[in-house]
Amino acid sequence: MTVNEKVEALRALMKRDGLSAWIVNGTDPHESEYVSPRWQSRKWLSGFSGSAGTVIVTAEKALIWVDSRYFVQCSRQIQGTCFEMRKSNGPEATSPSDFLKESFSKGEKIGTASETLMVQEERAYKKKGLDICASEDLLNEIWTDRPSMPQTRIEKLSTRITGESSQSKINRLRKKAEENKEDYLLISSLDDIAWILNMRASDVEDTPVFLSHLLIGKDTVYLFTPAERFENYDISKEVFELHPYEETASVLSKLNNCTLRLNPSRINMQLYSALSPSVKISEGEEYSTLFKACKNKTELEGMRVSHILDGVALVNFLSDVERNTKKGVQYTEISISNALASERELEEDYLGPSFSTIAGFADHGAVVHYSATEETDKKIEGNGLLVLDSGGQYAYGTTDITRTLLFGRATKQQKTDYTLVLKGHLALASQVFPEGTDGHQLDVLAHMFLWNEGLSFFHGTGHGVGHRLAVHEGPQRISSHPASAGIPLREGMVLSDEPGIYREGSHGIRIENLVAVVKDKKTQYGQFLTFEQLTCCPYERRLIVKEMLTEKEIELVDSYHAWVYEKLSELVDKRALSYLRRATKPL
Amino acid sequence: MTVNEKVEALRALMKRDGLSAWIVNGTDPHESEYVSPRWQSRKWLSGFSGSAGTVIVTAEKALIWVDSRYFVQCSRQIQGTCFEMRKSNGPEATSPSDFLKESFSKGEKIGTASETLMVQEERAYKKKGLDICASEDLLNEIWTDRPSMPQTRIEKLSTRITGESSQSKINRLRKKAEENKEDYLLISSLDDIAWILNMRASDVEDTPVFLSHLLIGKDTVYLFTPAERFENYDISKEVFELHPYEETASVLSKLNNCTLRLNPSRINMQLYSALSPSVKISEGEEYSTLFKACKNKTELEGMRVSHILDGVALVNFLSDVERNTKKGVQYTEISISNALASERELEEDYLGPSFSTIAGFADHGAVVHYSATEETDKKIEGNGLLVLDSGGQYAYGTTDITRTLLFGRATKQQKTDYTLVLKGHLALASQVFPEGTDGHQLDVLAHMFLWNEGLSFFHGTGHGVGHRLAVHEGPQRISSHPASAGIPLREGMVLSDEPGIYREGSHGIRIENLVAVVKDKKTQYGQFLTFEQLTCCPYERRLIVKEMLTEKEIELVDSYHAWVYEKLSELVDKRALSYLRRATKPL
Repeated sequence: MTVNEKVEALRALMKRDGLSAWIVNGTDPHESEYVSPRWQSRKWLSGFSGSAGTVIVTAEKALIWVDSRYFVQCSRQIQGTCFEMRKSNGPEATSPSDFLKESFSKGEKIGTASETLMVQEERAYKKKGLDICASEDLLNEIWTDRPSMPQTRIEKLSTRITGESSQSKINRLRKKAEENKEDYLLISSLDDIAWILNMRASDVEDTPVFLSHLLIGKDTVYLFTPAERFENYDISKEVFELHPYEETASVLSKLNNCTLRLNPSRINMQLYSALSPSVKISEGEEYSTLFKACKNKTELEGMRVSHILDGVALVNFLSDVERNTKKGVQYTEISISNALASERELEEDYLGPSFSTIAGFADHGAVVHYSATEETDKKIEGNGLLVLDSGGQYAYGTTDITRTLLFGRATKQQKTDYTLVLKGHLALASQVFPEGTDGHQLDVLAHMFLWNEGLSFFHGTGHGVGHRLAVHEGPQRISSHPASAGIPLREGMVLSDEPGIYREGSHGIRIENLVAVVKDKKTQYGQFLTFEQLTCCPYERRLIVKEMLTEKEIELVDSYHAWVYEKLSELVDKRALSYLRRATKPL
Repeated sequence: MTVNEKVEALRALMKRDGLSAWIVNGTDPHESEYVSPRWQSRKWLSGFSGSAGTVIVTAEKALIWVDSRYFVQCSRQIQGTCFEMRKSNGPEATSPSDFLKESFSKGEKIGTASETLMVQEERAYKKKGLDICASEDLLNEIWTDRPSMPQTRIEKLSTRITGESSQSKINRLRKKAEENKEDYLLISSLDDIAWILNMRASDVEDTPVFLSHLLIGKDTVYLFTPAERFENYDISKEVFELHPYEETASVLSKLNNCTLRLNPSRINMQLYSALSPSVKISEGEEYSTLFKACKNKTELEGMRVSHILDGVALVNFLSDVERNTKKGVQYTEISISNALASERELEEDYLGPSFSTIAGFADHGAVVHYSATEETDKKIEGNGLLVLDSGGQYAYGTTDITRTLLFGRATKQQKTDYTLVLKGHLALASQVFPEGTDGHQLDVLAHMFLWNEGLSFFHGTGHGVGHRLAVHEGPQRISSHPASAGIPLREGMVLSDEPGIYREGSHGIRIENLVAVVKDKKTQYGQFLTFEQLTCCPYERRLIVKEMLTEKEIELVDSYHAWVYEKLSELVDKRALSYLRRATKPL
């Protein structure tokens, strides 16, 4: 079926059901950041393959809203189809809900799939005066080869890796529920469920989760997911009662006269509308999200070890790149990503990437969300910087690192830019702060040197990172966005520290380490916290302008490099040792 | 009448009216920070003279809740009366609403004066399940010599001082109202009204406002305040229609089928309950608050001039203190405050203090909200630091400055502390930041050096300052409190920059300048802003450890001092010139 045929088929069903419009928001029933193929419905219908966007089909129009990251890509991908692109940000921005509001009068029916419409989103439409008819997904009737519900094999992690049994986690959650007079906790967030049950699978690329819902009652825990996942695994000793995924709504519909906690931005309307009016709803973030964010000693130790292994792979790779480039080997953005992946794969405990590698050379480095494709794949030749952002899933932790590599000679501006970014990166990583401090306060540390020069970057400074789980997790973040205020950083949280600078048409620079929040001194002014560096890999010293650093900053770089050398020198391949020595010597 | 007699008289009225409890929150009908004598009801009833606290009288009990600033003072002031103190923060904290909730069952009536109960507060009680019976103030029947409604003479400021006519301000407000489909704006915030009408009076000590309400309609502006204020002033050319203060509710009650905007935390229940159900309420901050915060060129110029005059007075004073101390003159906290006041009074355009001076010597300096009284007045003798926080109202602006003065010799710790505070003060004052940045982000700049040493301070870093108006104004602030997030600093805003450090039983240090937000460079990364120093007075160079400063910080101090010298050298008294020269020479 062509895109136009799909749209026509959808219109026929809309007509049959008396619908004036159909919305495809392209999420999954769990509002996951990365979705499994079954729910890549926006891509299937429109051909647009980006990670965000909203499709609306009416009798006359087929529209797709995308943000500025995707203006070019989307235009290209929908070319020749009946789809028209709309911009969701920037000066020509419009919004899907404004379009619906203007196009349709009261009484006209606007539909969408209830399983992918979150409670929060439905309320936002309602606030705009739009009543959405959420129903079974019409696409099911047209998308004949729609991938089935994934049911990859579930692996149970030992407490030697997780540091806490699922029973203990359930107990902690029940205690919070009791304190707040809640009888049930309904959880649809996939990494929360994986963390609570100490289980992992591979339903979603690079994020080891399994599609499921979890309902925690005072006595019983209900896990809704296909039984086939547990082949050869005895679940009788597990804390949960297993039910098919499809039965979630019907089990929920049987609850009566109780209080149930849910997160309206992670629970879909299919489940929500199944709840009886006698169920009192208590709304808020899943308790497990904060529990999960604060890593225990075992998890932190696993993160440390994973980062050492990752550092070994990176240093072996970097030394190869240096040697091969001298020998005239021709890398491209894709081939260099593959070379790094191969190096990681040599490690027995490496499980796969934690996200798709970003490798942007020269002007491609200035495109923040660049992802090389066969058509755009650039040769790495001549003078230029390579932004290389990648990460791995290891048996006991997750990594995420960005290094900016110099090929050939750097311009003065490139060196100055790199040094300004490094100064911010170091200022954030080395700051001591009292308990209660949030990531909105700390954000300025990464920005301040850039701002003083009229420069900035517009992505977040730091995101939470899971333990052998999602490479992006909340609730904490370090960001200029006010939503990051009021969420204190706590002991055990792992965050990225990744300032950058992007000069369109020229070059990009980003330096990213993961850091863990650890206790610092306790004084009469309170308990202080600081960051411990997890990432173990040299910075690009040839891009550092030493004269721009204070003594304290020089000492920070030197002691970091001394630590990297100490940790890696006995682990890297012999061929990489001279590179490591040079890369980590004092400035 | 003694305190106990007042409480008994109140109880008799409560009994007559069938009330189980009576609340006195001690605010005025405008939720002003500083209240005029008529509304100092908490003080009249309990004897406690602090600036915050809640009184509840029941048939058996007379209770007063105060925060940690006032534990000692309140205990002392209520000694020998029937009042018992309760703590509103700290480990033994309880809350008035929890007490009411626990003490009374549904159906029992809890009363308070409707004119001092804000809509927001009433809702907070309701949320706790408490229905408050707001009525006429019972105290009116007992407090026979209650001060009458203040009606100090109103002075009209020329646009040469305000930079904008009240008609133009009204036009801007009406435009905002129209954009938001609002027919009326009801404003009770006193400094907003003074700003809108370009009028000042002296109903409240140190803050040149006049008690009034303002109702802005599409065609008519209603000002509710006593006509007697306008003696010898022809109001016929003014933008408003004058009505007695007492008629506010009755005029409001005549509005029908319209939309009225109000700020629930600044509108009292007496006015709110007068509104007809046919009036649609639109809630939000007064538009004038943000307008007022962003000073125009004339206002900024007036602030600059006021700060030069203030600097002259301060430098004359500081040189006298130095000379007199050498001569053996004995100052106390109060006499040194008076000496500074006398110096300011020599200036023709000085109108009075902008708040009560804080002068805390030695260990008193460590008490953040210290205010010297005749009993506590400390002699300034031997070695020690004096925290001196004061400000003035001038014909064209308002000042607020803190300097920490050294008497005798400083300890190493005092010098280190001072230098750490100065580093934070300078880092904040000199930062460049993009439009959109808020004070929660910038706060860390003032704290970061202290935090790295396990030190901190727990008051705000910066508050907004009015133009010839309130020394504290919103909406902007620089603070660790998440409520300061999402309120961007804008061109023309004036803020304080006042980090400190307080070592209990030893010494306090605070350095405060006022700064104005001004445009900096515009680049492809956006429009940048920075701060302009308004305060013009040397730092205490004898407390600066030069070795702890970076080159950039030394340059910041030196160029600030060079600017202070340039601005003041031709204006200070001859006797102060040698002091000024020494105090401002390069480090």
